[in-house]
Amino acid sequence: MGKDNKVSFNLKTPKGTKDWAGSDALLRDRIFTTIANVFKRHGGTALDTPVFELREILAGKYGEDSKLIYDLQDQGGEICSLRYDLTVPFARWLAMNTDVRSIKRYHIAKVYRRDQPAVSKGRMREFYQCDFDIAGQFDPMVPDAEILRIVTEVFEELGWQGRYGIKINHRKVLDGLFEVCGVPQDKIRPISSAVDKLDKMPWAEVRKEMVEEKGLDGEVADRIEKYVNLKGGRDLLNSLLQDEALVANASAKAGLDDMGLLMDYLDAFGVLDRMSFDLSLARGLDYYTGVIYEIVTEGSAPPAQSAEETPKPKSSKKSKKGSNGDDDDRSNDPTVGVGSVAAGGRYDNLVGMFQPKAQIPCVGVSFGVDRIFSITKARLEREQSADVLRSSEVDAFVMAFGGKGFTGMLKERMSVCQGLWNAGLKAEFSYKVKPKLPQQFKAAEQGGVPFAVILGEDEMAAGKVRIKEMGLEDGHPEKEGVLVDLTALPTELKTRLDAKKSVAGVTQQLEEVTV
Amino acid sequence: MGKDNKVSFNLKTPKGTKDWAGSDALLRDRIFTTIANVFKRHGGTALDTPVFELREILAGKYGEDSKLIYDLQDQGGEICSLRYDLTVPFARWLAMNTDVRSIKRYHIAKVYRRDQPAVSKGRMREFYQCDFDIAGQFDPMVPDAEILRIVTEVFEELGWQGRYGIKINHRKVLDGLFEVCGVPQDKIRPISSAVDKLDKMPWAEVRKEMVEEKGLDGEVADRIEKYVNLKGGRDLLNSLLQDEALVANASAKAGLDDMGLLMDYLDAFGVLDRMSFDLSLARGLDYYTGVIYEIVTEGSAPPAQSAEETPKPKSSKKSKKGSNGDDDDRSNDPTVGVGSVAAGGRYDNLVGMFQPKAQIPCVGVSFGVDRIFSITKARLEREQSADVLRSSEVDAFVMAFGGKGFTGMLKERMSVCQGLWNAGLKAEFSYKVKPKLPQQFKAAEQGGVPFAVILGEDEMAAGKVRIKEMGLEDGHPEKEGVLVDLTALPTELKTRLDAKKSVAGVTQQLEEVTV
Repeated sequence: MGKDNKVSFNLKTPKGTKDWAGSDALLRDRIFTTIANVFKRHGGTALDTPVFELREILAGKYGEDSKLIYDLQDQGGEICSLRYDLTVPFARWLAMNTDVRSIKRYHIAKVYRRDQPAVSKGRMREFYQCDFDIAGQFDPMVPDAEILRIVTEVFEELGWQGRYGIKINHRKVLDGLFEVCGVPQDKIRPISSAVDKLDKMPWAEVRKEMVEEKGLDGEVADRIEKYVNLKGGRDLLNSLLQDEALVANASAKAGLDDMGLLMDYLDAFGVLDRMSFDLSLARGLDYYTGVIYEIVTEGSAPPAQSAEETPKPKSSKKSKKGSNGDDDDRSNDPTVGVGSVAAGGRYDNLVGMFQPKAQIPCVGVSFGVDRIFSITKARLEREQSADVLRSSEVDAFVMAFGGKGFTGMLKERMSVCQGLWNAGLKAEFSYKVKPKLPQQFKAAEQGGVPFAVILGEDEMAAGKVRIKEMGLEDGHPEKEGVLVDLTALPTELKTRLDAKKSVAGVTQQLEEVTV
Repeated sequence: MGKDNKVSFNLKTPKGTKDWAGSDALLRDRIFTTIANVFKRHGGTALDTPVFELREILAGKYGEDSKLIYDLQDQGGEICSLRYDLTVPFARWLAMNTDVRSIKRYHIAKVYRRDQPAVSKGRMREFYQCDFDIAGQFDPMVPDAEILRIVTEVFEELGWQGRYGIKINHRKVLDGLFEVCGVPQDKIRPISSAVDKLDKMPWAEVRKEMVEEKGLDGEVADRIEKYVNLKGGRDLLNSLLQDEALVANASAKAGLDDMGLLMDYLDAFGVLDRMSFDLSLARGLDYYTGVIYEIVTEGSAPPAQSAEETPKPKSSKKSKKGSNGDDDDRSNDPTVGVGSVAAGGRYDNLVGMFQPKAQIPCVGVSFGVDRIFSITKARLEREQSADVLRSSEVDAFVMAFGGKGFTGMLKERMSVCQGLWNAGLKAEFSYKVKPKLPQQFKAAEQGGVPFAVILGEDEMAAGKVRIKEMGLEDGHPEKEGVLVDLTALPTELKTRLDAKKSVAGVTQQLEEVTV
C-alpha cells in the first residue's frame, strides 16, 4: 500500500468480543480439554451445529431476551440468526433426527447475545458454553444424578476442590410450596422469578417486589419466607416430608420423592456431600420441569483459609437470614461471589416445541467457561504457577555457539530438531543463520522453555550435545549442562522432562489432568 | 405446546451448513487434535479471534470474492461481517498488537462464504480451516522450510504416508519467467491465474484462455508452455540455473536462490524427497510474495497399489503433457483428485495494509479439514476400522443380572462406575432400575464398547465382578469372562484395554497418534 493512499482502519474487534492469545488461550484450551475428557468418560458424544440457525428455529424460545439475538443480513435466500445458546440447536437436532431416541451429547462452542457488554465483569457478546445433556426416556432421576456427578468431576479436575458448592432444587417442590403458601396459579412464575433473586438481594427487597410490584398478599409472602431460607441435605428433605401441608400437595410430594431418589443415587456416586438442597434456587428459564441446579464459587476473593480446608455449602444449621439480612451478611458467604459458574436442570418439553411427535425428555448442564477461566487464572496467579501460564508448550530450545569463524550451525540445529520432533518432543530453534548465544538463551527464557539443547562444533564432531536445564541455581551439579550422545538425546530429554514434572507438584496439577 | 396451536417448523440447518454428530464428529475431532499437536510441537501458540469482524476490516481483501462475505444485520451499533478466512483476522491482530514482532500462531476455526454450496463435493458455506503461520523478520527461507516440515508431519500422523504430494513454487520465479517469456507487466497476474488452472484443464485450453481471452501473443504462450510443464527437484533447479535468459532476470534469480536455500533446509529437516518443484503452481490469491505450495492427494479413489507402495510426487522424468493432454490423462495422476487438501505461502505485505508502520512478513499454511476428513473417513471405511468409527470412546459397560426377585442392582452399578471414573476410565451403565441382561449387552454392542463389567448378587457379596471382552469367538478361553476382585477392577480393565490396543495394530494407527 503506497504512502499516498493511506487508509485509516478502525483497528479493533467488535464491541463485546475479544481476541484470545498467548497464555490465556492456552489455559482456556486446557480447561476445554479437562471438561471434554470428563464428558467422554461418561460416554458423551460430540455434536457440532452451525453457528447460525434459521431465524424461525430460535423464535419464541427466549421470551424477552429474543431482542438480544444477532440476525444475519438478508442477502437473498434464507433468513438466519446467530445461535443464542446450545440448548435450542440441540433440541432442533433431536427433533430432526427422530431415529435418535436417546443420546448423551456434549457441545463446546461460542454463543452470541447482543447484550450491553460488561467486559470488566466478564459479560461478553461472544462467549463460550460447554454443555452436556442426556436425552431419552429413562427411569426417574438416574441421568439427573449422573449429570451432577459429572459436575463434581469437572470442578475437581480443574483443581477447585472445596471451592465450589452445588445448589439443587426441584421445580415441582417449588411450585407445590407456592401453592401451599397460597400463591395464585397465574402468579407462580413471577413469584418464582422473584425468589431467584435471593442470591443477589436480601429477603426484605424480594418481599417488597412480591407484594408491591407483583401484588402478592403480604401474609402469603411471609409464609414463603419460612421455606425459601431453608438449606440442607437429607435432614431438610426429611423435615419437609413431615410437613403435612406440603406432602398433601401432589406436585410438592412428587418433587420430594424425586429428591429422595436423587440423594440415594448421588450417595451411590459418592458425591452427595457436595450438594446443598436449597429452596431459594428457582432459575430464570421457563422451560425447566424437574430438578434444577446451580454451581457457585467463592470467586476471585483471596482465600480466607488454607486451600486444604473445605468450605462446605451452607447447611440448614446456619442461622436463617431475617428480613433485615443485607449484602454485608451475604458477602461473607464463600459461595456468593461472581455468581454461578455452571447451571442446568431437567427440561422435558422443549423438543416437543419443534416436533410434538418427537417429544423427548432431557436433562443437562452448561458450564460458563469464561467465568471458570477468570477464576482459575486468578488462582494460578496467586499460586504463582508460572509454568501453567506459558504461551506455548515447547520442551527444548535447540541452540548453538562457537568461537571465531562460527558458522551458526543452522542445518545441524535443524537436524537435531528433526530428531526431537520425530520422537514427539516439542522443540524450537532460532531462525537466524548465525544467532548469538545470549539471544538464543533470551528466546528460551521468554518462552518459558524448560531445557536448552546446546550444539558446539567440537562436541557435534564427537557425536555429542549438551542438555541444560534452564534456571538452575549456581552450584547445582547440572548448572553447566550434561553432555549426552546425540543418538540418546530424545530419551535423555524425556527422562528429564518427566522428572521435572513429577517434582513440580501441586502447581502442575492442572497441567497433569489436562495434558 | 397444545395440539390446537400446532406450529409448523422448517426443521433443517441453513443451506450449505450441516450438523456434525456421532462417529463423524469424533473422527473430525481426532483430526483436529492430531493437527494441533503437530502445531504445538513446533512452538505454536493458539489465537482465537471473534467469528465476526468490523466490516471495514474485511473490505478490499478478497477482490471479486468479497460478494461471498456474510454480513450481520444492522441492529444499531457497529457494522460487522462473518470472517471469510483466518488469515485476515490474524493480520488485523498483528497490526493491533504492535509489541508482537514475531509469533508462531495456530488457529482452528470455522469460516463463512456465501458461495453456491456443492454439498456433494464437500463445498460448504460454513467450514473449518486449520491455519499455522509464522510472522516475523527472519533469515530467508528458514521459517518457510519449517512450515513445509509441519505439513509433512501432519499428513504422516494422519496416516497418509505415500498418499500425498507437496507442490512448491516461488512467485518471484514465476514473475521472472513470465517477464523472460515476454508477458507485458499488466498481464502478469491474469496470465498467472490462467497457469494456475493447469491442474484442472489441459494446456490447450489454458493457452486458448491466454491468447483469446487475455490477448497474449501466441508465441509468448508457447514459450510459457516450455516452462510450466516442468516438475522436479534439485535436478530441475540446477537446469533452471543454467538457463541464461532466466538467471539474467533479477526476480527469477532471487526466486531460484530462495528455492536453493529452501531445498537445503528441507534436506536438513529430512523431508526434501516429499516435495515437487512445480512451475505450473501459481495459486489464486494476489497477496503471496514468495514461496507458494499446495498439497494434493489421490483422493478417495480406491488404491491401485498396496498401501505400502509410495506413489511419489511426479518427477521431471514423467513424459511432459503435450498440447493434446486431456482429462483422461490427468485422471490417472494419483495427485489429482479432490483438489488440494492444504495450501499456503509467504505474504509479506498483508499486515501493512492495516498498519503501514506495523509491516511484518508472514508465511503460513491452511489445512482444508473437511476434505481431509472425507478422504480419511473413506480410507478407514475401506480398511474397515470399525473401532475408529465409533461415536463415543467408552471402555466398559457396567451391567448386572440375577434370577427371580432380582433388584437390578442399580446402586451397585453406580458405585462400580464411580470406581472406574475415579480411575479415569470411561464407563456407562443402563439408566433402567431393572434392565434385562440382553438389553444391556445390546446397548454395549451398539456403542462398540469393548468390555462388559458384569455384576451378579452372589459374586458381589464375595467382592467379585466379571470382566468380559465383547465379541470373543466361541471357544476363546475368556469367552465367559474372568472373575476379578472388585478392588482390582480398574487395574485389570486397564491391562486388558492396553493389550487390546496393542494388537489392534494398523487400524488403530489414527487413534494412537491422536488420543
